[in-house]
Amino acid sequence: MEKKRLTYRDAGVDIDAQSEALRRIKDFVKGTRTPGVLADLGSFGGLFRPQLDGFDEAVLVASADGVGTKLKAAFLSGVHDTVGRDLVNHCVNDILVQGAKPLFFLDYIATGRLDPRVLASIVEGLANGCRENGCALLGGETAEMPGFYAHGEYDVAGFIVGIVDRPRLLDGSAVRHGDLLVGLPSSGMHTNGFSLARKIFFDVEGLGIDDRVDELGETVGQILLAEHKSYLPALSGVIDRLHALAHITGGGLTDNLPRVLPAGCTARVDRGRWEIPKLFDYMAHRGGVAEDEMFRTFNMGIGMVAIVSPDQAGALESHLDALGERHVRIGSVVPGEGGVLYA
Amino acid sequence: MEKKRLTYRDAGVDIDAQSEALRRIKDFVKGTRTPGVLADLGSFGGLFRPQLDGFDEAVLVASADGVGTKLKAAFLSGVHDTVGRDLVNHCVNDILVQGAKPLFFLDYIATGRLDPRVLASIVEGLANGCRENGCALLGGETAEMPGFYAHGEYDVAGFIVGIVDRPRLLDGSAVRHGDLLVGLPSSGMHTNGFSLARKIFFDVEGLGIDDRVDELGETVGQILLAEHKSYLPALSGVIDRLHALAHITGGGLTDNLPRVLPAGCTARVDRGRWEIPKLFDYMAHRGGVAEDEMFRTFNMGIGMVAIVSPDQAGALESHLDALGERHVRIGSVVPGEGGVLYA
Repeated sequence: MEKKRLTYRDAGVDIDAQSEALRRIKDFVKGTRTPGVLADLGSFGGLFRPQLDGFDEAVLVASADGVGTKLKAAFLSGVHDTVGRDLVNHCVNDILVQGAKPLFFLDYIATGRLDPRVLASIVEGLANGCRENGCALLGGETAEMPGFYAHGEYDVAGFIVGIVDRPRLLDGSAVRHGDLLVGLPSSGMHTNGFSLARKIFFDVEGLGIDDRVDELGETVGQILLAEHKSYLPALSGVIDRLHALAHITGGGLTDNLPRVLPAGCTARVDRGRWEIPKLFDYMAHRGGVAEDEMFRTFNMGIGMVAIVSPDQAGALESHLDALGERHVRIGSVVPGEGGVLYA
Repeated sequence: MEKKRLTYRDAGVDIDAQSEALRRIKDFVKGTRTPGVLADLGSFGGLFRPQLDGFDEAVLVASADGVGTKLKAAFLSGVHDTVGRDLVNHCVNDILVQGAKPLFFLDYIATGRLDPRVLASIVEGLANGCRENGCALLGGETAEMPGFYAHGEYDVAGFIVGIVDRPRLLDGSAVRHGDLLVGLPSSGMHTNGFSLARKIFFDVEGLGIDDRVDELGETVGQILLAEHKSYLPALSGVIDRLHALAHITGGGLTDNLPRVLPAGCTARVDRGRWEIPKLFDYMAHRGGVAEDEMFRTFNMGIGMVAIVSPDQAGALESHLDALGERHVRIGSVVPGEGGVLYA
């Protein structure tokens, strides 16, 4: 009796294709090297020697995140070299709000069958994001999981470790009544609200990824894939002046501002203080989405909020002006039971 | 004209269900606290203060991994509280081979629609794995991604950070001709080779997840979900005596032993020195899988290999004996062009 001889490749896992992809991405990864990196890819774990001189008490700050359903826009458009940068910037912002600067980043990329060209594009985006934030791409895992992901689809997760000196840790405890909320503009939807946005563009409006939205002057793909901005360059030189930072991600201003408010404080946000980008007005109108829902789903044009005492606000704003970074005072901290009070 | 008002919940994302799940898992996470942990869940990033007293030069060792298609066995059997421990143990082993002890772990769990009960089970497994390894579950991301994962399915990735003093870093450079290979038994397939194993059990043999395999004395589900063992308890007290450690994961002995060999060294493995567990003989026979393919797909009963000089081997083995850990000398390091020479 003859039996078919099964190999691991028959079962859908191609170790040789993984090796080819690894070779293609090594150059991208090398471009992210920082002085702390000790080892090449290929060993089991990445090695990083943190520079601890001058720290009173070094604290590591770690965060994990994904890109969410923004990935669907990458799949539809065939553009795979931007979501990696989005992910890195998202992670950088998530630890920046605690005052930390990034040390290194690791990725997890899972797909059904590995396309080395796509993998290289994803890693190119990750590496660009890391390099721009002075963060080493220290390693990662690429998982070929037949039967898990639809053809041409994948998921990407990122993991970042940064460092902050404990006396400089931002945790919101310094926030006081009367502090000002200084908003920094977002660069689109960032990485949140995509399930709803896709419903509006594709299902309600019946648009395709390459269709141009005249009111917005861009294609659906350009709108959805707009970069998630990193606020590290704008804020890293001025963190010591701040009482808190809030990264406006899933849950919008409504859910994210309260996360850094101490007891007895409410964030009063004056929605008239900044111009809501047309994109959000378009989605609210076309999707028939209520304003409250918009503010707890999308960033509504504000990607990061710095909470600062009135006497430091001017210095913060001068710092941002010198860097060409826009900013707007969107409200203040008032006595209250927490949450956001929209005015 | 009336429009249906879309909310984020209509689009498939249920933030309230996420909150409920978060409450249920907080107790599991609390059980993993170590003295270095500074913050509760809920802030943007997890905070960890490493204890650096006594280190000449602290080096952080980081690794990312997933569970791979072993997850399919969890889906089929409805057992979700073991894959988390597998993942943590896998990550712990991956950094142990560089001499590092774990500090903290973060997870990324992605699914189509969140089932809080399943999520809590996954996190229970992660927390058990972390607690058993003295590793803090510092945080993570739970991503609800409608349209990405089949109903009832999910993916889990893990990220670990450990620490080692640079003089004690294991990198294989100390390996010499004549060193002995001391193998530590695996506890099943660990987390590798599942695509092929599933093909054999389900497609070739036509078995179901709850069917008993008489030759192996267990159900298919029990066989596939057997725990991925952590070698930290066995080896943490004896690392200074070792020249290298190889974690036998994807690629088997064939691909993993050479990763820690310096130039001019080949690993000579005597396949007669240990009894291949029945599970692997069963799969080779029923799947018609060639022996070479078996050794580069599965761990074949050896989950970790310690490379040690002949004069230290006795001390290593006494240490393992005292802990009740089994071990077997499976070969030695010989002059050669790399790779594994099976005898």
